[in-house]
Amino acid sequence: MTENKQLGKQSIKFAHPPFIRGAASVVGIKESQGPYGKYFDEVEQDPMAGGDSWEDAEGKLQERAAELAIKKAECKTEDMRYVVAGDLLGQLMASSFGLMKLERPLFGVYGACSTMGESLAIASMITEGGFANNVLAITSSHFGSAEKQFRFPLGYANQRNKSATWTVTGSGAVVVSAASDIKTESGPGYSIPNKVLEEKNKVHVVGITTGKIVDYGIKDSMNMGACMAPAAADAIVQHFIDFGHNPGQYDKIITGDLGLVGKDILIDIIRAKGYDISENYMDCGIEIYGDEQNVQSGGSGCGCSAVMLTGYILKMLESMEWKRVLFVPTGALLSQVSFNEGNSVPGIAHAVLLERR
Amino acid sequence: MTENKQLGKQSIKFAHPPFIRGAASVVGIKESQGPYGKYFDEVEQDPMAGGDSWEDAEGKLQERAAELAIKKAECKTEDMRYVVAGDLLGQLMASSFGLMKLERPLFGVYGACSTMGESLAIASMITEGGFANNVLAITSSHFGSAEKQFRFPLGYANQRNKSATWTVTGSGAVVVSAASDIKTESGPGYSIPNKVLEEKNKVHVVGITTGKIVDYGIKDSMNMGACMAPAAADAIVQHFIDFGHNPGQYDKIITGDLGLVGKDILIDIIRAKGYDISENYMDCGIEIYGDEQNVQSGGSGCGCSAVMLTGYILKMLESMEWKRVLFVPTGALLSQVSFNEGNSVPGIAHAVLLERR
Repeated sequence: MTENKQLGKQSIKFAHPPFIRGAASVVGIKESQGPYGKYFDEVEQDPMAGGDSWEDAEGKLQERAAELAIKKAECKTEDMRYVVAGDLLGQLMASSFGLMKLERPLFGVYGACSTMGESLAIASMITEGGFANNVLAITSSHFGSAEKQFRFPLGYANQRNKSATWTVTGSGAVVVSAASDIKTESGPGYSIPNKVLEEKNKVHVVGITTGKIVDYGIKDSMNMGACMAPAAADAIVQHFIDFGHNPGQYDKIITGDLGLVGKDILIDIIRAKGYDISENYMDCGIEIYGDEQNVQSGGSGCGCSAVMLTGYILKMLESMEWKRVLFVPTGALLSQVSFNEGNSVPGIAHAVLLERR
Repeated sequence: MTENKQLGKQSIKFAHPPFIRGAASVVGIKESQGPYGKYFDEVEQDPMAGGDSWEDAEGKLQERAAELAIKKAECKTEDMRYVVAGDLLGQLMASSFGLMKLERPLFGVYGACSTMGESLAIASMITEGGFANNVLAITSSHFGSAEKQFRFPLGYANQRNKSATWTVTGSGAVVVSAASDIKTESGPGYSIPNKVLEEKNKVHVVGITTGKIVDYGIKDSMNMGACMAPAAADAIVQHFIDFGHNPGQYDKIITGDLGLVGKDILIDIIRAKGYDISENYMDCGIEIYGDEQNVQSGGSGCGCSAVMLTGYILKMLESMEWKRVLFVPTGALLSQVSFNEGNSVPGIAHAVLLERR
């Protein structure tokens, strides 16, 4: 019988929390011009990132974010025993072509824009379970490839309504590492000196609350905030219940890309369930662009929460500005086909509890 | 420092192998008419499975396979702490809509037709790591939805070449459970009596070898066997090296859907690396349809290896006909877009070591 890591109905509290050894963010020009521009590690000036297509460009953003995160973690590519990666494109083409050169064992994951929460959760379980010393978790999105995948050709120049969001061009990558008392002494990762308490003064993944699909029957793909807010509320409230926490115990509760419309819905739903998160709530989608950048309801995409995590949130934790953050990337489950066939757009959200220790 | 589960370069050998508590297969008419028809649990007579679209039909196959696997495992839906699910459709629409009603925490995964290997691997790590007592791993494919996604409208009645494969209509679901000495005493799953050695006489997931993307530069989406064979060879040979095994130590080495063309390539590549698997090799894609069924090179799709696993392979293990099987679902990483843009079709394969204990 092992230590009980299972907490409440749908959470894990890690017995030996894995830590974030390194992280990197690569963004496009528009993101670099927003209020968080200075926090991102690299800015790609070419919308095509030197590639031949939007999909190719997105893959190149992943390739660079992966390389940079591994470098910042002071690791080699071979030290990554697994890569857990995803994007928004059909059949995960940005991840497949972007990460091929790493030549590492790969788990492809898809949770729409919640994918960074999913990849972090799986990477944390893999390391804490003793299956790897280091795992790379990475996601991306690209405005060009996402518009092509989900909406209209860019040349058509369609009008955007007020609840629409702007897909972030960017990729965020995180190296998740096992705590010293979990780490095994052989296999890839052995090249890293196994210092005692090497995880000191790092950001730790203390727990996760994995989301369920929540469908309120909303069918408007231009109002994804409304589609995702119920799922985010479900995961956040379940997290509070499972951990026995209240909102005041977090420096920030941060969703992925609910935008201005989704924000209000989220706060209302959670208030109806007896919790008030309005004081310490933040949404990556609302933050990433400035008011003058004409992005309607905010930013979105797998890359939105990924670059805000790796560019800004982790730095705020590392510098002790914040000590505990609930990071909740949010996803809208739709495809061109499901939308055209008149289906609703269900949501999903994966909460990750981050603490500076 | 925990027990070292990491084996060689890219394998895991579980310290406390999880076991398969229950499994189910649901197939379409064509699959039921093939040589393995009698082994499948349920046959759906309606190509649309009572749904409104091919995607909807595929989701319904998943829904039924999930329900049946949970029932056969003598569990309730709430006992599944996680669902790890995927399919071939863009943005995993069959899984999202098919499994929504389960209302369980969901990890969406994508490894093309290798997805059953990926979902089994992640489900095994989750249970062996102590994060869940029971996890549902499930995948599906559907001839109608796959042709629509990747090829031509069915009404166009395009000709198929000799190396083409036929996407299997079906879904396979497996309940993976933690060994008694791993299982924790609280949380969902507690309702199951924690019998000592309840895993006796069951099929166990003893280890995994997670695949890397392998690209030989092949661009022919109608010859997916050739695209996937190098990746399958890579995973199988690495598995032999990591475990110190030779092919003779397996009753069967079973790939997902290489088909007749891919089979020859696989055996040749592996022979060139010093191993001969020709004596005990089997491919789900070659097996699932009869010669008279006019399917060219064989069956394919996430559902192909999933229904052969849950319908036939596990039964052969349970009945002690076989004692050790290397199950290696194989995936071709392409999308409509990547193909139309002239990209190659890289492959990936995930090996799962199954033993009757």
